[in-house]
Amino acid sequence: MNFVIIGYFAAFFTAFSFLPQAIKTIKTRDVRGLSLITYLFLFLGSVSWLVYGYFLNDLPILTTNTLTTISTSIILFLIFKERKNTYN
Amino acid sequence: MNFVIIGYFAAFFTAFSFLPQAIKTIKTRDVRGLSLITYLFLFLGSVSWLVYGYFLNDLPILTTNTLTTISTSIILFLIFKERKNTYN
Repeated sequence: MNFVIIGYFAAFFTAFSFLPQAIKTIKTRDVRGLSLITYLFLFLGSVSWLVYGYFLNDLPILTTNTLTTISTSIILFLIFKERKNTYN
Repeated sequence: MNFVIIGYFAAFFTAFSFLPQAIKTIKTRDVRGLSLITYLFLFLGSVSWLVYGYFLNDLPILTTNTLTTISTSIILFLIFKERKNTYN
C-alpha cells in the first residue's frame, strides 16, 4: 500500500473533524465544556495554515483549512455569544 | 518577511491547541458539550498524520501530531468515561 493514502486519510479526518462539533454546538448552545483558548488556537492555526497554503499554492492545505477555518470560527463565535449571554 | 514563519505559527497553534481543552475537561469532567465524532476524527487524524510523518521521516509532522495525539486521546477517553458514568 502506498503510504500517501494515509496522508489522504489524515487530511480527510482533519478537514471534517470540527463539522460535528459545530453542528452540535449550534443545536445545543452548550459551550460550558468547550475551551475558549483551544478554539482561539484552532482558529488562528487554521487561518495561518490558509495563508501558508496560499503562499505555497498548495491545494490540499488550502481546502483542508478552509473547512476547519469555517467550522472553528462558528464554534468560536458561539463560545463568545453564549458566554456573554450567561454572564449578562 | 519569510512566509515560512507563518508555517511555524500555524504548526505551533495546531500543536498546542488541544492542551487547554484536555486540562479543562480533566478538571471539570464536563463532556456534555463535546462532540464524540469530532474527537474520534481528531484522534484518527492525528494518528494517521503520525504514521504519515513516520514514513516521510518529517520531524515537524511527527512532533506536532505526537502532541495532538496525546491531548485528543485524553479528551476522547474522558468523553467515553463520563458518558458511561452518566448513563449508568
